Amino acid sequence: MSDAERSTRELLVELLKDFYRRGWVSGTGGGISGPADDGGLLLAPTGVHKERIQPEEFFTVDPADGSIRTAPADPSLRPSDCNAIFCLAVRERAARSVVHSHALSAVLAGDLARDGDHVAIRDLEMLKGIRGVGNRDTHLLPVIRNTPREGQLVDQLSRVLDDPRFASSFAVIVADHGAYIWGDDVWEAKRHTEVYHFLFEAVVARRDRQKEDTP
Amino acid sequence: MSDAERSTRELLVELLKDFYRRGWVSGTGGGISGPADDGGLLLAPTGVHKERIQPEEFFTVDPADGSIRTAPADPSLRPSDCNAIFCLAVRERAARSVVHSHALSAVLAGDLARDGDHVAIRDLEMLKGIRGVGNRDTHLLPVIRNTPREGQLVDQLSRVLDDPRFASSFAVIVADHGAYIWGDDVWEAKRHTEVYHFLFEAVVARRDRQKEDTP
Amino acid sequence: MSDAERSTRELLVELLKDFYRRGWVSGTGGGISGPADDGGLLLAPTGVHKERIQPEEFFTVDPADGSIRTAPADPSLRPSDCNAIFCLAVRERAARSVVHSHALSAVLAGDLARDGDHVAIRDLEMLKGIRGVGNRDTHLLPVIRNTPREGQLVDQLSRVLDDPRFASSFAVIVADHGAYIWGDDVWEAKRHTEVYHFLFEAVVARRDRQKEDTP
Amino acid sequence: MSDAERSTRELLVELLKDFYRRGWVSGTGGGISGPADDGGLLLAPTGVHKERIQPEEFFTVDPADGSIRTAPADPSLRPSDCNAIFCLAVRERAARSVVHSHALSAVLAGDLARDGDHVAIRDLEMLKGIRGVGNRDTHLLPVIRNTPREGQLVDQLSRVLDDPRFASSFAVIVADHGAYIWGDDVWEAKRHTEVYHFLFEAVVARRDRQKEDTP
Repeated sequence: MSDAERSTRELLVELLKDFYRRGWVSGTGGGISGPADDGGLLLAPTGVHKERIQPEEFFTVDPADGSIRTAPADPSLRPSDCNAIFCLAVRERAARSVVHSHALSAVLAGDLARDGDHVAIRDLEMLKGIRGVGNRDTHLLPVIRNTPREGQLVDQLSRVLDDPRFASSFAVIVADHGAYIWGDDVWEAKRHTEVYHFLFEAVVARRDRQKEDTP
Repeated sequence: MSDAERSTRELLVELLKDFYRRGWVSGTGGGISGPADDGGLLLAPTGVHKERIQPEEFFTVDPADGSIRTAPADPSLRPSDCNAIFCLAVRERAARSVVHSHALSAVLAGDLARDGDHVAIRDLEMLKGIRGVGNRDTHLLPVIRNTPREGQLVDQLSRVLDDPRFASSFAVIVADHGAYIWGDDVWEAKRHTEVYHFLFEAVVARRDRQKEDTP
Repeated sequence: MSDAERSTRELLVELLKDFYRRGWVSGTGGGISGPADDGGLLLAPTGVHKERIQPEEFFTVDPADGSIRTAPADPSLRPSDCNAIFCLAVRERAARSVVHSHALSAVLAGDLARDGDHVAIRDLEMLKGIRGVGNRDTHLLPVIRNTPREGQLVDQLSRVLDDPRFASSFAVIVADHGAYIWGDDVWEAKRHTEVYHFLFEAVVARRDRQKEDTP
Repeated sequence: MSDAERSTRELLVELLKDFYRRGWVSGTGGGISGPADDGGLLLAPTGVHKERIQPEEFFTVDPADGSIRTAPADPSLRPSDCNAIFCLAVRERAARSVVHSHALSAVLAGDLARDGDHVAIRDLEMLKGIRGVGNRDTHLLPVIRNTPREGQLVDQLSRVLDDPRFASSFAVIVADHGAYIWGDDVWEAKRHTEVYHFLFEAVVARRDRQKEDTP
């Protein structure tokens, strides 16, 4: 294993602890992935307490098809159900790191799209934290429907990644569920994750106040 | 004392610190229990600051009747009033670890059942964090009335544990008070505790917004 | 200095750090006092960042009249303006430790008494965290008006401490300002501080929801 | 480098970590500056994760014109876009330390000025945390419009700093964006930062409740 992969594993572990502190990966939900050696993708195991994952507990998968290249020594660990989703974002958007959040703010932001397929975000400086987006832009964030199993989200996700309305988005909200957020590397995925969660909280807080203003 | 019990005591101490940080066991309220050697139940003392409990300060009780097997060396410590409740969950649901939360979110979720005996939770992926529950299920969480003393909750709790409507629930809300949440072992009790607190916050936040939508 | 006073100073320092983390003593506001040797009262200095106070930076005052017995070595430090208030609580209620909170939740709870002189708290198990109070009691918490300087609160505070309606209260809210909360020793003051902040948050959250229910 | 500048750099690094924990500088947004040797201004680099800045990564600029005196060894670092804004506050208000916050509470407080150019804050003890302000004062906080790039804020900022209505203010809200907050030294800037964020949260929470009271 290269030094680069070793420090990526340590960074993923550190970020999971911080995301847990904020309530984004509680109850064993959520997850993270990042670049492994030789074009592979590091993938957290499923069903474990995410804030306690150790650097040696990641799987390495081939983003072309999600097949497992290396598995952690502990035979009880299974790869995250996010596998197919993460690999899709890697292939379709050239992402090298994908975060899966179970934040309540993502769920509440998704509720705003009850009759549509997206949330429109505007009038926020924080939009500039998304690569290529300016603070005068109206940023359209796709919202897809939840499915009984995570892998079944692939079809919907594939469609919104192809939809030109969402070309500038680095995130997808899954209604009633959370969000997938990605970036070019782990640092950009971290920045996008913080930025999108700020945007989720902002649109929910502003919608509440707008309702009060226009009774 | 076995190594297993020793590490269980350390884990309970660590979890109490984390629950305190989140406001779930403040003001000496709330508590936790877990498996001791020989089928016993570790029980936190009452009236102490929960985030400061030490591994050697737990009582061991017999879950069959709540009788004390071993007491901590400090003679000023008394077993938690949750004793009878915890033992009931152990006997009726084969729980091996029970958490008692004093979170405000549990109280506010209980308020939603003002005219009934339960809260219905649906349309949330986080439901899958409860063993045996899917995200298409409507999960019924029982809400019982508060009593002057904790031990007096036993009758009501016994009834809801027998109620087939609540067979899939690993938690009971006590109105105006908090919640009891359990699992097969400490790890499952921890996961269920995080999941149910997320669900409490989600149903309260969604109810607030639903009211705004339908004036 | 006795070992008891030394450990009290360390505990006060530790509690200030935790209160700061929760937003109860931000912007150099708020404070804490506790028992010194020989019946004295340890008093934090004014105008300093409360989370950074060191054990040797407390003043010792005589609770009979607030006169300074010992001052910290640093000549730039001045005793907290809470001095007169803290000493009053010590004399009138036999408190041995008093906390002054600048929490927003205390301000918002005080707003609920806009047309009266108290907040009535009921239907909460957490009331049992206040010495002598049961969960069936309606607990009346006095709210006094703010004054330009803290010392000017003494007259109003003196009146409410004599008011039999508030005999069971271990706290006073100062409208637009915060709260004074006390106990028999530092541990009881800590417990009461956590309990009252929970109660502040609960009455504000419930009032919000009650309004929604009865339009 | 003097010991004073070295400890200032360490303090700025520590404050950024704390501001990050509170959500005031997330997603690489926000920043901080403080006094360097020889009248210079320490300036954080742009586009980096603010909670991870190291003491040696600050630029030193001349507050007279924002020109760079010294740059960090890492050639990939560029000075913060706040440069022109920070220098303006230093020149116009004799500030020696300026904080730039991306807090959601600042954005929501700015929303309250939708039809005007300021927010009026009154009836809060915390106002005394601002140098020269009393708790009976009505404190006017200017709100300026956001611009595509941070440097373009200079004209508006220059006008409000000259406006006698805002002479007692140590902060400016940038609508949809955040706030600039300053002080005589880093400690005063820290105190003002905590005080203004409390005030942001208070005016938003009170406005919400006032609306409910007067339908």
